[in-house]
Amino acid sequence: MMRTADIDTPALLVDLEVMERNLRRVADYTRKHGLRLRPHTKTHKSPRIGRRQLDLGAAGLTVAKVGEAEVMLAAMPEAGPADLLVAYPVIGHAKLERLMAVARRAHVTVSLDSLAAARQLSEAAQAAGVKVGALAETDVGMGRVGVSPGAELLGLARGIERLAGLSFEGIAFYPGHIKANGEAGREALTALGGVIQRILADFRREGIEARIVSGGSTPSLYHSHELEGLNEIRPGTYVYNDWNTVASGACTEDECAAALLVTVISTARPGQIIVDGGSKTFSSDRFAGSAESTFGHVVEAPGAVFHKMNEEHGYVDVTKCDRKFEIGERLTIIPNHICVAVNLHERVYGIRGGELEEVWEVAGRGKLQ
Amino acid sequence: MMRTADIDTPALLVDLEVMERNLRRVADYTRKHGLRLRPHTKTHKSPRIGRRQLDLGAAGLTVAKVGEAEVMLAAMPEAGPADLLVAYPVIGHAKLERLMAVARRAHVTVSLDSLAAARQLSEAAQAAGVKVGALAETDVGMGRVGVSPGAELLGLARGIERLAGLSFEGIAFYPGHIKANGEAGREALTALGGVIQRILADFRREGIEARIVSGGSTPSLYHSHELEGLNEIRPGTYVYNDWNTVASGACTEDECAAALLVTVISTARPGQIIVDGGSKTFSSDRFAGSAESTFGHVVEAPGAVFHKMNEEHGYVDVTKCDRKFEIGERLTIIPNHICVAVNLHERVYGIRGGELEEVWEVAGRGKLQ
Repeated sequence: MMRTADIDTPALLVDLEVMERNLRRVADYTRKHGLRLRPHTKTHKSPRIGRRQLDLGAAGLTVAKVGEAEVMLAAMPEAGPADLLVAYPVIGHAKLERLMAVARRAHVTVSLDSLAAARQLSEAAQAAGVKVGALAETDVGMGRVGVSPGAELLGLARGIERLAGLSFEGIAFYPGHIKANGEAGREALTALGGVIQRILADFRREGIEARIVSGGSTPSLYHSHELEGLNEIRPGTYVYNDWNTVASGACTEDECAAALLVTVISTARPGQIIVDGGSKTFSSDRFAGSAESTFGHVVEAPGAVFHKMNEEHGYVDVTKCDRKFEIGERLTIIPNHICVAVNLHERVYGIRGGELEEVWEVAGRGKLQ
Repeated sequence: MMRTADIDTPALLVDLEVMERNLRRVADYTRKHGLRLRPHTKTHKSPRIGRRQLDLGAAGLTVAKVGEAEVMLAAMPEAGPADLLVAYPVIGHAKLERLMAVARRAHVTVSLDSLAAARQLSEAAQAAGVKVGALAETDVGMGRVGVSPGAELLGLARGIERLAGLSFEGIAFYPGHIKANGEAGREALTALGGVIQRILADFRREGIEARIVSGGSTPSLYHSHELEGLNEIRPGTYVYNDWNTVASGACTEDECAAALLVTVISTARPGQIIVDGGSKTFSSDRFAGSAESTFGHVVEAPGAVFHKMNEEHGYVDVTKCDRKFEIGERLTIIPNHICVAVNLHERVYGIRGGELEEVWEVAGRGKLQ
């Protein structure tokens, strides 16, 4: 058995107990409130964890790309329904053909925001002889994908209902603009609740059944039950959490399951250490919690400021630390954004009680298409 | 043969003619000025291109990580000297053992900035029975790795000279702080020239031979011959170039060989298109040329502003474009920082005259260790 001390750096470590607690907490919360859980697997990209999410009661798994759907088939139970939501419009012949191969092995639903995308999906489903679910994506304030609530959304839903090969299953949105708890978060949630109510009133009035009302992201996770009409959530980050999630108030440092193990490789400059992880290890996603541009939290030295990076170099200002750092010393750093960091790693080192218990591949890493 | 139209998106395209021109231009420049060229392969991470750099006269290849050195062995000529510079301190038993396996097949040089790193390398070289080159890394203004010029650098060089298994080959520095041409760049280059002169005077006075004086990055590339005493450069980005290099004045848009092919997947929001490449495709490295946070240059629509991204979504503001964009339309985008983008892709699509000519693997992708 490899020991933790033998893991070469930089490496992605996951504390298995913390991860299990995170998985159980959300499973318990959704069960208690009668919410369907289709966790987004973009964070972990590993069938091993997807399977655990299903075992704990998830109704299905969410992916962004067809390549991730292909990988997540391995997470599906041998017996019982297999369910995959592709929360991304699938455009173009090559991807649709691959998606239909997945749809022969699992119930596939796609969320999309245009009739152009719906027509392509309908044609592919008919050609393949499968039925594919569709969710009409609406924009509730994120300003990314999704048609506006109201006439546009109703038009999209009606359009989907008319297309052969598709079953209209409901609506999807991503409240990624709700980043913080506290007063600002509460106001944003109240506004979101109003939007959902107006959408559902529209649908009732027009006689369109939106069986699934799917939203949910990690920062606003535990407020999901306060949103009347919402019946499914798709959080991803909660499995590992990260420093941005801590900043949002949605978790504590103790609930961060994943961290990057790095080694100090230079102490040549006074007041600074260089670690062997930069943007190729952490990603260059910045800290959302303030205007400061920092790249992670150094667990062993909370006063250290990870303020700059190049591809292979992390610059850590240690002027506020009352200790010395030696070349070869190892540090654990919680990244700002764990999803993009996971995508940079081939494998995860699962740690329990400080010792290495298992290693798994990030099988869904780098699935761009 | 696959046609360009059949390449699924997002995908990394390289224009083979532009790349060849870039490679030749630097090869010609270094030959003309009697500079050794050891190009940094971190940009392309592909033995196929490393081999071409050697064929065009490069003295060796530079890598950052041992894993990249292992990959670049495949670029070395069957006959003739194989030369690899690891421009990064190699710390720890696991990496050193792998490096010694490389050192049995090629002449390996490591640039390092501490006696702690030099001693580890010396012990590994002695145990393996190989001779490894060492460059003393000095900081000429970047503030990253490297000891200060003067007493510290002399002490490091003398320390390396005394260690068995190592041959002291000279000094290395990375002038990554010189980003722009024009007046600011000229002042920085003049200052750098002064630093090099003082270092070389120190070495002459102390009777230490610095056979190699290795610097050079892409933005200041064509000024290398103006720096007296500099005899080796290690540019990386020049093979592909990117939008930051254009901003630095070191290349033009026509000299950008690489771009990301993406598809428009949403037009739901007026004045905005969403493309199927975000930080998982481009990296979230920002544009160095201004305070604006943009993520690349849309070739087909120069007025479009690629202003925001999530992992799978690129947000492009098209309010200044006097044309419509359709779902399914493909666009080519030159990224800000090509090195980190290449690291996110499994393969490169080599295009000549608009048609796909070859596909190669990014064999050195994701080599974190």
